[in-house]
Amino acid sequence: MTPPDSIKLAIVGSVGIDTIETPRARREAILGGSASYGCAAASFFVPVGMVGVVGDDFPQAYRDLYARFGIDCAGLQTQPGKTFRWSGVYEQNMDCRRTLLTELNVFAEFSPDLPEAYRRVPYLFLANISPDLQLHVLDQMTERPAFVMADTMDLWIDIARPALDALIARVDLLTLNESEARMLTGEHNLCLAARKVLAMGPRFALIKKGENGSLLFSDQGVYIQPAFPLESFDDPTGAGDAFAGGFMGALAAGDDVGEPALRRAMRMGSVVASFAVEAFSLERLDGLTREAIDDRAACFQRMVHVG
Amino acid sequence: MTPPDSIKLAIVGSVGIDTIETPRARREAILGGSASYGCAAASFFVPVGMVGVVGDDFPQAYRDLYARFGIDCAGLQTQPGKTFRWSGVYEQNMDCRRTLLTELNVFAEFSPDLPEAYRRVPYLFLANISPDLQLHVLDQMTERPAFVMADTMDLWIDIARPALDALIARVDLLTLNESEARMLTGEHNLCLAARKVLAMGPRFALIKKGENGSLLFSDQGVYIQPAFPLESFDDPTGAGDAFAGGFMGALAAGDDVGEPALRRAMRMGSVVASFAVEAFSLERLDGLTREAIDDRAACFQRMVHVG
Repeated sequence: MTPPDSIKLAIVGSVGIDTIETPRARREAILGGSASYGCAAASFFVPVGMVGVVGDDFPQAYRDLYARFGIDCAGLQTQPGKTFRWSGVYEQNMDCRRTLLTELNVFAEFSPDLPEAYRRVPYLFLANISPDLQLHVLDQMTERPAFVMADTMDLWIDIARPALDALIARVDLLTLNESEARMLTGEHNLCLAARKVLAMGPRFALIKKGENGSLLFSDQGVYIQPAFPLESFDDPTGAGDAFAGGFMGALAAGDDVGEPALRRAMRMGSVVASFAVEAFSLERLDGLTREAIDDRAACFQRMVHVG
Repeated sequence: MTPPDSIKLAIVGSVGIDTIETPRARREAILGGSASYGCAAASFFVPVGMVGVVGDDFPQAYRDLYARFGIDCAGLQTQPGKTFRWSGVYEQNMDCRRTLLTELNVFAEFSPDLPEAYRRVPYLFLANISPDLQLHVLDQMTERPAFVMADTMDLWIDIARPALDALIARVDLLTLNESEARMLTGEHNLCLAARKVLAMGPRFALIKKGENGSLLFSDQGVYIQPAFPLESFDDPTGAGDAFAGGFMGALAAGDDVGEPALRRAMRMGSVVASFAVEAFSLERLDGLTREAIDDRAACFQRMVHVG
């Protein structure tokens, strides 16, 4: 277990028990949640701490798995009751998913409290939870982190806009998928949508396009990060969180928040996400080596290099 | 007018009169067709000759436009009757279009005859027409060209599979969009679909993903070419043909058919296509300079460069 005081990155998000059906398989009660995917992905680059909540039914095997990744769990509360559960089904093309069930359980009353050692971490990723809770975390920081990234979702854009606006003004980077970017800004064109996001405060807007990669916008222009082309994958769940976690981990490892460093970190996040989707849950990341990640990153570089 | 004997590239395809409706505009009776877009795009790189057919209603203004691009029209037949007409409407997001009307007119009886000077061109692009006609063109070549690219569409995959298979076995590169690649091979995954295309004969499979760029597959691996991000565009019609024409033009200009040369040519094709969609018909390409293309290509390079 990493000692808390060396933690470079904290990730606040959900921990869930997922049931997932794809055209080829169905898996019940597997570990999921943005904090699980994000921390596991980040753990290949830096000591990372998880902030979240689970119920008293949370299996020891999943805690053991977190320990194998070296994830610090001082910020993972255990509350009486059941862990957050989600169930979804992917259609034939895997880019369209339907939620069958969402049981918030202990997540409904979640109030993230940062362990003392997390209040000075230089890198903070506020994964998708309510913007009020994201603000509550930010307020607990005793020093302004070097870099704060926030994710959100359509629900909060819809029902918690004032808090979300307040949050967006205080982060360095806001990440959204295409439809969220359009919903937040009212702009269909992603370049124009990103420009509106930047006008809300952040230095960077990172728009995720799933299997079509991602775009980083800043006043320096645009960076285009394609997705790594895979011959097969099992489960797209958590791809965006693995991407974001790998990105923040790589960024924290380099301790440089200039645009070139962000681009390199996006490449690494994209590689980690490409591994994550090859299997369900954290199964592919479990046992993955940094060497395998670096090898695929080098292979990726050859795929985007114009001769 | 370029003297025909210096022609490096011939493009066989459709010439049409289009009526197009987008969420923001409606334009009647404008110049379209794969040969129009392809030749105009290629003309920035090499002397190009057009093989196609128009009716006796074809406006002189469009012939003048071809002349401004320096397109050789020795292979453009004029037949009694009306020019091919197409009309379509784009939905709000511009990635979905509906055909309102297709009138083949003189195109129904089109039999492409290559002028003598075209029968020895080193680069040949068989844009989307029936595979029987594409084979008929190939049969007229007195020397096997250095590089032959073919495009096709769902209709021919559906109704002319034997001829299409025969064609595919004889070309160097087959280009398809995502849904055509899936339809032709029965594989949803694009990497697996491309592998099946390569097994049919061509050295290269180029899969177009519209605003998400394109992928080049060969036994050397994959090259990922993202699309240039645009803040606004007027009309996606012809983007794929402008991409293909620019690609073939750039390839012919370098007279090198190695994979690095193909990658560089894809970059240039992508840039020319990004200009083409900024306006209707050939309006944005008309008057465009090679310098503007090279400037945008340099800008593009900065957008994909990991710092």
